Amino acid sequence: MTKLRFALAQIDTCVGALKGNADKVLEYASRAASNNAQVVVFPEMTLTGYPIEDLALRRTFRQAAWDTANDLAQRLADDGLGSLYVVVGTVGTEHSTQKPYNRLVVLHDGVVWAGYDKHFLPNYGVFDEFRIFASGDRSVTMDIDGVRLGFAICEDIWQEGGPVADFAERNIDVLVTINGSPYEEGKTDTRLQLCRRRAAEVGAPVIYVNQVGGQDDLVFDGGTFVVDADGTLLERSPMFVEDLSYIDIDSAAATQKPADIAPEMDPDGEVYTACVLGLKDYMVKNGFNGVCLGLSGGIDSALVATMAADAVGGEHVQGISMPSMYSSEGSKDDAAQLAENLGASYDVQPIKPEFDAFQKQLDLEGVAAENLQARIRGVIVMAYSNSKGLLALATGNKSELACGYSTIYGDAVGGYAPIKDVFKTKVWQLSRWRNKALKEGLGLGALPVVGYDPNAEGVVPASGELIPNNSIVKAPSAELRPEQKDSDSLPEYYILDKVLTAYIEHSEGRADLLAHADFDEQTVDTVMRLVDRAEWKRRQYPLGPKVSALAFGRDRRLPVTDAFRE
Amino acid sequence: MTKLRFALAQIDTCVGALKGNADKVLEYASRAASNNAQVVVFPEMTLTGYPIEDLALRRTFRQAAWDTANDLAQRLADDGLGSLYVVVGTVGTEHSTQKPYNRLVVLHDGVVWAGYDKHFLPNYGVFDEFRIFASGDRSVTMDIDGVRLGFAICEDIWQEGGPVADFAERNIDVLVTINGSPYEEGKTDTRLQLCRRRAAEVGAPVIYVNQVGGQDDLVFDGGTFVVDADGTLLERSPMFVEDLSYIDIDSAAATQKPADIAPEMDPDGEVYTACVLGLKDYMVKNGFNGVCLGLSGGIDSALVATMAADAVGGEHVQGISMPSMYSSEGSKDDAAQLAENLGASYDVQPIKPEFDAFQKQLDLEGVAAENLQARIRGVIVMAYSNSKGLLALATGNKSELACGYSTIYGDAVGGYAPIKDVFKTKVWQLSRWRNKALKEGLGLGALPVVGYDPNAEGVVPASGELIPNNSIVKAPSAELRPEQKDSDSLPEYYILDKVLTAYIEHSEGRADLLAHADFDEQTVDTVMRLVDRAEWKRRQYPLGPKVSALAFGRDRRLPVTDAFRE
Repeated sequence: MTKLRFALAQIDTCVGALKGNADKVLEYASRAASNNAQVVVFPEMTLTGYPIEDLALRRTFRQAAWDTANDLAQRLADDGLGSLYVVVGTVGTEHSTQKPYNRLVVLHDGVVWAGYDKHFLPNYGVFDEFRIFASGDRSVTMDIDGVRLGFAICEDIWQEGGPVADFAERNIDVLVTINGSPYEEGKTDTRLQLCRRRAAEVGAPVIYVNQVGGQDDLVFDGGTFVVDADGTLLERSPMFVEDLSYIDIDSAAATQKPADIAPEMDPDGEVYTACVLGLKDYMVKNGFNGVCLGLSGGIDSALVATMAADAVGGEHVQGISMPSMYSSEGSKDDAAQLAENLGASYDVQPIKPEFDAFQKQLDLEGVAAENLQARIRGVIVMAYSNSKGLLALATGNKSELACGYSTIYGDAVGGYAPIKDVFKTKVWQLSRWRNKALKEGLGLGALPVVGYDPNAEGVVPASGELIPNNSIVKAPSAELRPEQKDSDSLPEYYILDKVLTAYIEHSEGRADLLAHADFDEQTVDTVMRLVDRAEWKRRQYPLGPKVSALAFGRDRRLPVTDAFRE
Repeated sequence: MTKLRFALAQIDTCVGALKGNADKVLEYASRAASNNAQVVVFPEMTLTGYPIEDLALRRTFRQAAWDTANDLAQRLADDGLGSLYVVVGTVGTEHSTQKPYNRLVVLHDGVVWAGYDKHFLPNYGVFDEFRIFASGDRSVTMDIDGVRLGFAICEDIWQEGGPVADFAERNIDVLVTINGSPYEEGKTDTRLQLCRRRAAEVGAPVIYVNQVGGQDDLVFDGGTFVVDADGTLLERSPMFVEDLSYIDIDSAAATQKPADIAPEMDPDGEVYTACVLGLKDYMVKNGFNGVCLGLSGGIDSALVATMAADAVGGEHVQGISMPSMYSSEGSKDDAAQLAENLGASYDVQPIKPEFDAFQKQLDLEGVAAENLQARIRGVIVMAYSNSKGLLALATGNKSELACGYSTIYGDAVGGYAPIKDVFKTKVWQLSRWRNKALKEGLGLGALPVVGYDPNAEGVVPASGELIPNNSIVKAPSAELRPEQKDSDSLPEYYILDKVLTAYIEHSEGRADLLAHADFDEQTVDTVMRLVDRAEWKRRQYPLGPKVSALAFGRDRRLPVTDAFRE
């Protein structure tokens, strides 16, 4: 036989949840078998979740992961799935005190087959794998029913050399890569071009299976796909949802038969959906059913509330209007309208009584008095969080966080900040996109829209707008003193965001920044000063001196481990 | 000539402060030359400060560091110090897009001599050097006036192989190591034993120069020393202060002549002084002149206030008593007495008016009402911080932080947390040690005691105690409800701290913990649950989804860069 049916299991795992992840593998493997798949491919570190960070260094965790893989192989066999080849990722136990491996294993016939260990360990950006893993040095192929598979794990295909270079000389029939590749704007096309290049290099189709779902501050978009040896796109799974798709690889055929190809998403829809999924999974994985947040009538809180409604349903969103003496009537109306549009709970808690009580004792002026207002709001939001068990959401955007234009312990309060990596100009863009999506029934890609069924009657608000247009078009203001505008303290956002992109994301120096035709010197110096100062403020707490050998008191923590306690 | 005089320059550098660090090198080099030194040795990454983290990846910073080294060589020559050999650390510029090196260079005759690149890059615990540096692959020796020096940088001597193994076969006269080795309890002896082993291996004396001072959450203790080839301790500089000492190395002599050997410090005095220096340097490097903190009458805030007084003088400490309806009279008296003993400013700000204002609107109960009290205090502390420009200090200890026994945005408020890595039982121990030190005139090693001259008359309080004994001996309580005691929620600290040490610091699993004769099952399970839950709570904010390729919005930040803006 030269034809092999692969199932591509794009699943959402949870770091540390060994049992839950194994159960999910069993469920998908069973579905794959019933659709006549012979091989089912899961994402990188399926059993442990990804990224496991320093949990990898915990001996008891590695032992439990090893036991889980063995148990799972047995359970598969017990369920009559022993003949299936189940490709999963896990942490490789070591035979010495050395670091473990990032390992791919094949479960078959009730046993864990010797696996492949990731060769290239990414250690840049969000990745720190050199810290926790040892590097594998063997490339691995496997013959299944006359079809030769070569294996690679994520970073292996992003670097030159390693297993892919080996396979170029070893005549494989298909390259199977398992991935934990986080979402980034524009990455879909980058991955496709990369795999086209690797397919040409090994002269065979490439199967790229990626995990999906939010894990702490990473969002994995899935977007699993298959390209043929000649670069033709053969299959693409939808982004941002779990999926099980199939592809038949015929080692005797010159070209493979295409399968389903999910449509590309709108770029704004992609970012919006990534934020929604990140929030949704954070809540699911940490046991929250609802959120609370301050609704000021401004666009940031409006967008965050809308994302929350899309993630968990408007009825699980508690909006809190906390007007001060400086809040405009328009702002209060916009906040109330938004809550109504979303079907959210909505309370009004004026902050004047508390402000007066503090001021009678403290008599603050200027920025200290402005911060006091923001901090009273923070206390109220946390009171809702504590008393009702809601996740408090911070509504800061990337532009203001980058410039330190927020109050620590005030508007910065929250367990999760859905738009912290979204610039202000993009906040407006996403808000417009969301309104358009409702009107045009676009939906959030394949992610279920929890709050609204755009096809249902009477769902679109009378105004036709989900997010009040006034919140989108009015001049941004913190409303902490009379007539205050963001532009009193910051450059206009359309230019600010460009300078921030160059300075933060592209690491340009002062001379590089000044070379931009549209950046003047004063703006550049203002932004550099604000960012450097904010960078320092952001890392203040929980700074403190380390006096013992093994950290705690160090800014490197284990990932969420509710599911693992050994 | 076979005799060479080395000056050991144990200095306190600042990350990013290229000009300031270079100025300090010039000053110390000048003093060294006037004392007839021919070689002066500075710590690892002298010019850039250490650890520079992702600043190393910034091209403009590397260029500026390179320019600084060249300028400094020229300035040394201009000042008539061209004949001196000045050994400094810096970041090595690269000739491609590859990562830079952690480099040692020798400044001499107005030029930067080709240097040595660190071979072993630590990437565990607080270190992430593989992320930011490329590894050097050449060992380097240098002949100066007939004496052959071999060079190594910090981690190079902690690993087997590498340059030290090379030198074992190359007949060097002295091994010169430059270090950025953070303080840990008990590390002084570890370093000494290590260097004795390396001295035997290379058959020559080892010069170990370490940086001193606080940098964010690391404290470098200095503790520079020299051992002879036979392991004899030849020199030891004092800990926790800048220092310039000398050692003559005679390549013709079988054994070297000893120099000054600073006395060893008391173990509690070491930890206490590390905390004081960490705080002091954090303030100096970030431009703070004073601190503010809540004084509850409890031991944690008492110890932190005392450390602050030792760091910057009692007159720069603003204590704030914020009694609630549940605060005991004894607590208020102890707080006032402490402030008097320290010569600190002291205000009383009862929180009942604010508590009533919030409760009229929110009507909270249970833990939410307890947290409200802590958060009102947080708002008041930050009001002092904002209106007076003071650094707010958080007073949490390691035991309560580990167990999540604190209120986020409440007592956890602060820019710096001096005892966050100190267990509660150690808090008591350090407090007793500090009282004893005052009575016995022990001082803080060589670190100047800012607040007190134990030899001055009338400085010791009438009670004979700096920290009121009552704060040390009374049962710990958060005083957030009537008759509350820490032991209502936590195991007794004497057993809690042992379990935490085993679980956190030694990464023991549940089975390991249960094997301890003095740990019962209920305590073990309680502690594991509390720690895992707190671990998760601690990493909440600023979590948020990452949607762009290059971070901000990622928990890896540049170090303090006030001094570098290019």
